[in-house]
Amino acid sequence: MKLKAGILGATGMVGQRFMKLLEGHPYFEVSALMASSKSAGKKYCDVAKWYLKDEIPKGVSDMIVEDIDTKVADKLGLDLVFSAIPSEIAREVEGEFAKKIPVFSNTATFRMDEDVPLIVPEVNPEHFDIIAEQRKKRNWEGYIVTNPNCTTIGFVIPLKPIMDKYGLEYVHIASMQALSGAGYEGVPSMAILDNVIPFIRNEEDKAESEPLKILGKLDNGKVKFADFDVFASCNRVQVRDGHTESVFLKTQKDCSLEDLKKALSEFRAEPQRLGLPTAPNPPIIVSEREDRPQPYLDRDNGCGMAVTVGRLRKKKEKEFKFTCLSHNTIRGAAGASVLNAEVALKRKLL
Amino acid sequence: MKLKAGILGATGMVGQRFMKLLEGHPYFEVSALMASSKSAGKKYCDVAKWYLKDEIPKGVSDMIVEDIDTKVADKLGLDLVFSAIPSEIAREVEGEFAKKIPVFSNTATFRMDEDVPLIVPEVNPEHFDIIAEQRKKRNWEGYIVTNPNCTTIGFVIPLKPIMDKYGLEYVHIASMQALSGAGYEGVPSMAILDNVIPFIRNEEDKAESEPLKILGKLDNGKVKFADFDVFASCNRVQVRDGHTESVFLKTQKDCSLEDLKKALSEFRAEPQRLGLPTAPNPPIIVSEREDRPQPYLDRDNGCGMAVTVGRLRKKKEKEFKFTCLSHNTIRGAAGASVLNAEVALKRKLL
Amino acid sequence: MKLKAGILGATGMVGQRFMKLLEGHPYFEVSALMASSKSAGKKYCDVAKWYLKDEIPKGVSDMIVEDIDTKVADKLGLDLVFSAIPSEIAREVEGEFAKKIPVFSNTATFRMDEDVPLIVPEVNPEHFDIIAEQRKKRNWEGYIVTNPNCTTIGFVIPLKPIMDKYGLEYVHIASMQALSGAGYEGVPSMAILDNVIPFIRNEEDKAESEPLKILGKLDNGKVKFADFDVFASCNRVQVRDGHTESVFLKTQKDCSLEDLKKALSEFRAEPQRLGLPTAPNPPIIVSEREDRPQPYLDRDNGCGMAVTVGRLRKKKEKEFKFTCLSHNTIRGAAGASVLNAEVALKRKLL
Amino acid sequence: MKLKAGILGATGMVGQRFMKLLEGHPYFEVSALMASSKSAGKKYCDVAKWYLKDEIPKGVSDMIVEDIDTKVADKLGLDLVFSAIPSEIAREVEGEFAKKIPVFSNTATFRMDEDVPLIVPEVNPEHFDIIAEQRKKRNWEGYIVTNPNCTTIGFVIPLKPIMDKYGLEYVHIASMQALSGAGYEGVPSMAILDNVIPFIRNEEDKAESEPLKILGKLDNGKVKFADFDVFASCNRVQVRDGHTESVFLKTQKDCSLEDLKKALSEFRAEPQRLGLPTAPNPPIIVSEREDRPQPYLDRDNGCGMAVTVGRLRKKKEKEFKFTCLSHNTIRGAAGASVLNAEVALKRKLL
Repeated sequence: MKLKAGILGATGMVGQRFMKLLEGHPYFEVSALMASSKSAGKKYCDVAKWYLKDEIPKGVSDMIVEDIDTKVADKLGLDLVFSAIPSEIAREVEGEFAKKIPVFSNTATFRMDEDVPLIVPEVNPEHFDIIAEQRKKRNWEGYIVTNPNCTTIGFVIPLKPIMDKYGLEYVHIASMQALSGAGYEGVPSMAILDNVIPFIRNEEDKAESEPLKILGKLDNGKVKFADFDVFASCNRVQVRDGHTESVFLKTQKDCSLEDLKKALSEFRAEPQRLGLPTAPNPPIIVSEREDRPQPYLDRDNGCGMAVTVGRLRKKKEKEFKFTCLSHNTIRGAAGASVLNAEVALKRKLL
Repeated sequence: MKLKAGILGATGMVGQRFMKLLEGHPYFEVSALMASSKSAGKKYCDVAKWYLKDEIPKGVSDMIVEDIDTKVADKLGLDLVFSAIPSEIAREVEGEFAKKIPVFSNTATFRMDEDVPLIVPEVNPEHFDIIAEQRKKRNWEGYIVTNPNCTTIGFVIPLKPIMDKYGLEYVHIASMQALSGAGYEGVPSMAILDNVIPFIRNEEDKAESEPLKILGKLDNGKVKFADFDVFASCNRVQVRDGHTESVFLKTQKDCSLEDLKKALSEFRAEPQRLGLPTAPNPPIIVSEREDRPQPYLDRDNGCGMAVTVGRLRKKKEKEFKFTCLSHNTIRGAAGASVLNAEVALKRKLL
Repeated sequence: MKLKAGILGATGMVGQRFMKLLEGHPYFEVSALMASSKSAGKKYCDVAKWYLKDEIPKGVSDMIVEDIDTKVADKLGLDLVFSAIPSEIAREVEGEFAKKIPVFSNTATFRMDEDVPLIVPEVNPEHFDIIAEQRKKRNWEGYIVTNPNCTTIGFVIPLKPIMDKYGLEYVHIASMQALSGAGYEGVPSMAILDNVIPFIRNEEDKAESEPLKILGKLDNGKVKFADFDVFASCNRVQVRDGHTESVFLKTQKDCSLEDLKKALSEFRAEPQRLGLPTAPNPPIIVSEREDRPQPYLDRDNGCGMAVTVGRLRKKKEKEFKFTCLSHNTIRGAAGASVLNAEVALKRKLL
Repeated sequence: MKLKAGILGATGMVGQRFMKLLEGHPYFEVSALMASSKSAGKKYCDVAKWYLKDEIPKGVSDMIVEDIDTKVADKLGLDLVFSAIPSEIAREVEGEFAKKIPVFSNTATFRMDEDVPLIVPEVNPEHFDIIAEQRKKRNWEGYIVTNPNCTTIGFVIPLKPIMDKYGLEYVHIASMQALSGAGYEGVPSMAILDNVIPFIRNEEDKAESEPLKILGKLDNGKVKFADFDVFASCNRVQVRDGHTESVFLKTQKDCSLEDLKKALSEFRAEPQRLGLPTAPNPPIIVSEREDRPQPYLDRDNGCGMAVTVGRLRKKKEKEFKFTCLSHNTIRGAAGASVLNAEVALKRKLL
């Protein structure tokens, strides 16, 4: 018996990725598609412009889109929802759903709330424990679990084994982000042709704050933020999918380049140990080729869930550079939420 | 009476930029086009595939291309040459010319030689003084002056006023470089469509070493290198012209964001004071718009000779971020050589 | 004394082209910028996102944007308006203005009205004569003159000398159209990256009907449409500006390839004879290079007002192929309206 | 027992497609990789730059590349070879192999030879019969079968059912061709960024001549060419894979648009009836969506072997327009050769 999952914001790009990732999923089945009221009451295939190259899953094509309303959850007996709704409406909408059932949210709104876990299962699965506090404090039967921004996730996963073994002083990242991160209509072709745009609204704030929560330690039911500097500079480039990031970092303890490579390539965590359906194994692929990772060639590694790290170089004592790449709408969005739900199930939170 | 200039490597992209920049130049006239022997003896317009959007200058279109040979300099009484030849042959070829006449070289070969000045006229015009030593040591009548790599120049100009006022601890730059930097046939379209390539051969070495020489102090006829860390990560993106760079830096003395902006926007140097024909004024344009500089919109600022700096942010004490942009085949190549020659003339080295 | 011109739809891409083309114009000066009410009352530079690489003209940057209202024309004593407003509102808005002053419209709405001239001055300047009928019938003091769709104009100009000398049986054109034709936000980058879109709404209808009116004969004050087949297939490609068109045609009388080339390259018409400021001379540039015209290299020929024709081939008796290219927002939009107004002035219609 | 297949030109783009298509093939196994002498003697994975996004097949990665030499065929007992070698060397090399074993060639060299079949199995499988004549005349134990140019194949398949039912007067096609058609390094990124190139050497000749042979009738052991006009205009656009073609055609008998659609969508041929592994079913996909086919979305239809036809329109009696799309390195190259070999096997020619 699969759990019944609803998708909030089913017609957008991340909503569509949810559907593809849940097609034939062993734990969850898509039981409700919810979107804005202008789509409600119509067949999904008639209202959604399908953006992905892969075909629309057969099961959902003819489903009737519902309003985003907790009555739908009641009516259909949903066990959980995945959310990809705009951040402006998320506080109210996700909050309503969380009163009743678990919400796995890809939206930024709740991420930095003290009692809401911001989880990357390879990094901080123990943060699921603050859900108890959240439910108690908010008097919710359900709960909200969030996953980070698509820029954050690409470098926070490689930082985990490095921080654990060698500590971190600072991390500087310059991103080259894909068009899909802005939504299908987000970047006009006239804006990006023969161009780079060195600005993405609010992105640097997220990339500089979220990693410190994710890499933070649980201390008496609260997250104690990690203590190092993250500086980010975010750029948009003409790439369909896949965020590439140039990372500069300083560790607390020195180590050799080979030590660092080993820490990255041998890294495994709870999702890999549990053999979860959406977990990439390994989670970090270390490429030795001098000109990789490249978004066109590497974004689909691990079915879009692996982070590919390359060009690892040591410049001086404790100072390293590398380039990392992850698929922004899979690992950086829908896939992250689904993996969170898989871990939640194993932890008996579903 | 204009000085007679030859161009070594006249058929390539940088060679073509030399021609456009010298069209109607008040000090220099193009008197010889030299290229590989397969082009020699033919009309320029018949052998050169003209790459630029602007038309081929009328004066040079019908000139006969000559072999790269110092006899041409003798025959035509050349006063100087500009060089854009491949680095593999530059040591021999530029060396031969320098025995007789000044060589303004855009090639990497001689840049780091102890007795060869590596000059950005806004930054270190006093380094022209080491030419005396060069001539004596090598027993040359001419000399070689080099200009830096196209990646270096974009950030070394803004670093100058910052270093002078506040000192530098480290500089980390991640570049997003234009296709033209690899030459017309350098990057196949199949390689870069929907892609980023996080590797450019030898580029990071140049970007990490050249600034320290350029920003070095002259000490008893020798350059004492500047003493701070430069880490670079170089990426190729799908942009025709214009290198964009995300810069992270730490100063020695703290200052406010406004102080830093002022240092950059008020910066003027020898080429501006001399009012040289190719000198941009101001050399650094500080953009206050949140999403600039962009290569499509800003690469031609100052006729391709200005560096545009934007997104200046302060993160914590002494720690700053900005984005800078410069035209890689003008400010970063041919224009840099021409400006060097203009300064040399004013300094009576021509 | 220059005539006072207003621009309707001043904030869009075509509106911006109008401003650049009228910067320093000898006959007309921009005296009013009119746009939708959300921009009205504010400085132009504060409400318009400037799309062009060239800078915003100094004179208009600080002008206050006005509502689109004929009272503005009265108040400022406008002599004419140029219109680039959406076709949905043009029938009412342009009609209101035409009651009082001449309207030179780039909008499709009135183009096929029997008493409204659809003019390309190199092709059918005599169609200005139907304005008399228009004014009488509609009881207008002003009038409306239209110019064709950006796809039409590229091939209708070369058709003119061919039709006049050799007659036409059919014309088949397949277009590869630039992004700017859809407006700045018209084509999402996600839609066109690594793609071609073989559909542009209503475009083929326009390209198949407009040429027959433009190439029609004036007969007793009415346009008798030309009588040959035009079939069009319109495609969007990833090009910023410049529509490229593959043309197949059959003439009525046979001629040699050289005859056809000569007809095209020697073609001159009223705007060239009058030496009008915006008239390209020659209007048709015939390129002999095997791989031209190309939009990147040829769209700015004749300051964006020339049509470049290349790859002229004869396949069998009376059957020819060629490729033509024109700048879609200059020759295909704003420049066409301005040239119409210049002719109107010479014909004492202004 | 699978037949042993060699690949001539194994390191290029089409060679790589052969490997992917033959991975796990039920009839053929890749037994030899042959390439130029500079690759010979080394592991495939060490000498071939792998261009495709999908991974290099495990079986071939470690194979040692051999010289292109018939001795390899003898030594390994090859049953057939697939050829993707340059046309300049094909007459000699393919000829040598054909003395001994069947050659399925993607190269242009032999296509128009009178005794060499040029086959698209959905169109003219009966042309295999001229092999008997070829062997006799050339005294070969093997034979050569060719498949058409990548531009030809996209429109010749839809022409087949139309010609059979309604006859053809003329066909005009304007192509928008993918970068991969020129080979990995064929089109510099500087040439195609923000551009269209309206020229591909020799392409129009092929597209105008090959269809007449393919659609020709077998008459007394010889191909009698079809008798209608084909005019082609070939353009390169910035698309990775997939040739899009705007087609204008006139039939001999009139029919309705629905008749034409039916003829296309119901078309099945020998490969479909035989259920061959590489045969798409249906071979022609008729899309009713107003903006399709698009290369990004439709090139992989039928695993890259189907032709997608859309935008079918009737303009007047007997005159039609449509847009067709096919994958140029699969249906237009390697896949075509493999399908030919599958048919040959069923016809007992292997």
